[in-house]
Amino acid sequence: MLIISHPDQIDLARSLSHHHGIPLAELEYRKFPDGETYLRLLTPVKDANIVIVCSLNHPDDKIMWLYLLCQTLRTEGVNSIHLIAPYLGYMRQDTQFHPGESVTSKYFAQLLSQLVDKMTTIDPHLHRYKSLSEIYTIPTTVLHAAPLVSLWISKHVKTPLLIGPDSESAQWASDLSSRLNVPFIILEKNRLGDHDVEVSIPDVHLYLDHTPILIDDIISTAHTMIETISHLKKTPLRPPICIGIHAVFSGNAFEELSQSGCSKIVTTNSITHPSNQIDISSLKFF
Amino acid sequence: MLIISHPDQIDLARSLSHHHGIPLAELEYRKFPDGETYLRLLTPVKDANIVIVCSLNHPDDKIMWLYLLCQTLRTEGVNSIHLIAPYLGYMRQDTQFHPGESVTSKYFAQLLSQLVDKMTTIDPHLHRYKSLSEIYTIPTTVLHAAPLVSLWISKHVKTPLLIGPDSESAQWASDLSSRLNVPFIILEKNRLGDHDVEVSIPDVHLYLDHTPILIDDIISTAHTMIETISHLKKTPLRPPICIGIHAVFSGNAFEELSQSGCSKIVTTNSITHPSNQIDISSLKFF
Repeated sequence: MLIISHPDQIDLARSLSHHHGIPLAELEYRKFPDGETYLRLLTPVKDANIVIVCSLNHPDDKIMWLYLLCQTLRTEGVNSIHLIAPYLGYMRQDTQFHPGESVTSKYFAQLLSQLVDKMTTIDPHLHRYKSLSEIYTIPTTVLHAAPLVSLWISKHVKTPLLIGPDSESAQWASDLSSRLNVPFIILEKNRLGDHDVEVSIPDVHLYLDHTPILIDDIISTAHTMIETISHLKKTPLRPPICIGIHAVFSGNAFEELSQSGCSKIVTTNSITHPSNQIDISSLKFF
Repeated sequence: MLIISHPDQIDLARSLSHHHGIPLAELEYRKFPDGETYLRLLTPVKDANIVIVCSLNHPDDKIMWLYLLCQTLRTEGVNSIHLIAPYLGYMRQDTQFHPGESVTSKYFAQLLSQLVDKMTTIDPHLHRYKSLSEIYTIPTTVLHAAPLVSLWISKHVKTPLLIGPDSESAQWASDLSSRLNVPFIILEKNRLGDHDVEVSIPDVHLYLDHTPILIDDIISTAHTMIETISHLKKTPLRPPICIGIHAVFSGNAFEELSQSGCSKIVTTNSITHPSNQIDISSLKFF
């Protein structure tokens, strides 16, 4: 078995290599001045079982790398290709909201299913799909970061109060709450009109000595977390810690969240980012 | 028949639509903050014969747009997809120069052959491949810009002297020379050592009243043209006009070429660029 890493993911790949005792293969990768990709395998791969480590955030920027790499590996005669995509992109457009829309989740799944033999990912954003097998034709494995997040919280926070920023994130807060046996609350949004949203905050006077922890699967624009923090500021609670499984952070989202009044931002290394504090490489990838 | 244009190519698509009397379909295209693509067809396409206009310079940035668009068109029940890629990318890595290298020209051709039913391009960079059919499994049509370039020269330059910057570009200069019945010369490089190159310039005293025209298929880094201009400066010839079929212009290449001592830079609109002066849309695309 051999691991090949996308350059963005080299720290995680090294950690996986170390944890699971699988050597790293060397790949030369650069862009020509005209924007075309150059790839060269520097390690012999014939008959090997290949593990590609490549998170699929900013998938458009990575797909040609992945496509050309897989075709090259097939030509060189590998035995199998296992894609570890700790973050899986294109999971949100899971239906046609308007006529003529591209159901990109499906087409992306078809493309990956053509390229690799199996895929492993962590906490994919399943909403309308119940399972990845609805769109992926290859075997897929879903791993969960919750045990590692829960371990991090129990190590670093004395009296946590888990908070789900909205109803979709409630599942995360609730799951962690029962793992850690700590309280959790959900902020409820009541729409009063097109632009008027009332957020009801439960009574928090029981939790004044607790450290609030906001938890969500993906932090992308960070708007949900920032809005939640602004509501929490109206309460006597301490500044919260923000935990996200996947550090997508589009544009200036990380800077904006950092300045919004939270005490700390913590993510897993499913996507390489300065906020990574929870190493996922001990999960059962193999 | 309906034309769908990549946003980079909308001027050419409009011109094609006008010349050939084919309406343009409307496509909504944007990127989500996390870098994922959103596409929506705003024109009904069921049973239509679709023409996609998309030059494949910077192919890595366009491939997801093209892939998702083609899958969406198939789902919407189009009859056929004809790709017009006036510039065709990934033609240079046409063999393994070193073990383990990705022969990207082949894999790119396989991908496009899966997506569309036929393809038309202009003067592709054929070097080791004699024909596109060696790598493309769909029908391909190659059109040539030479008649239009020759028309432009005869309209704009009184007494041209065609110059091929190197032996690979000689074919262009020679072809145009016979079309226009004007003289042409080739600069010969003689390698004296690893870094020592002597360029022999033919006797040019016959051509002092001529306008030198440097001609090449692709202007990418523009290094070849800039070097040629520096050699021409040692002669009493006038400053040359630079003509390229495909305005790839990587990085600062256009600025550097503009400041290198040529009098003008002229390209076709196979790739949208401020230097476009030769409209290709009258060619026999259909």
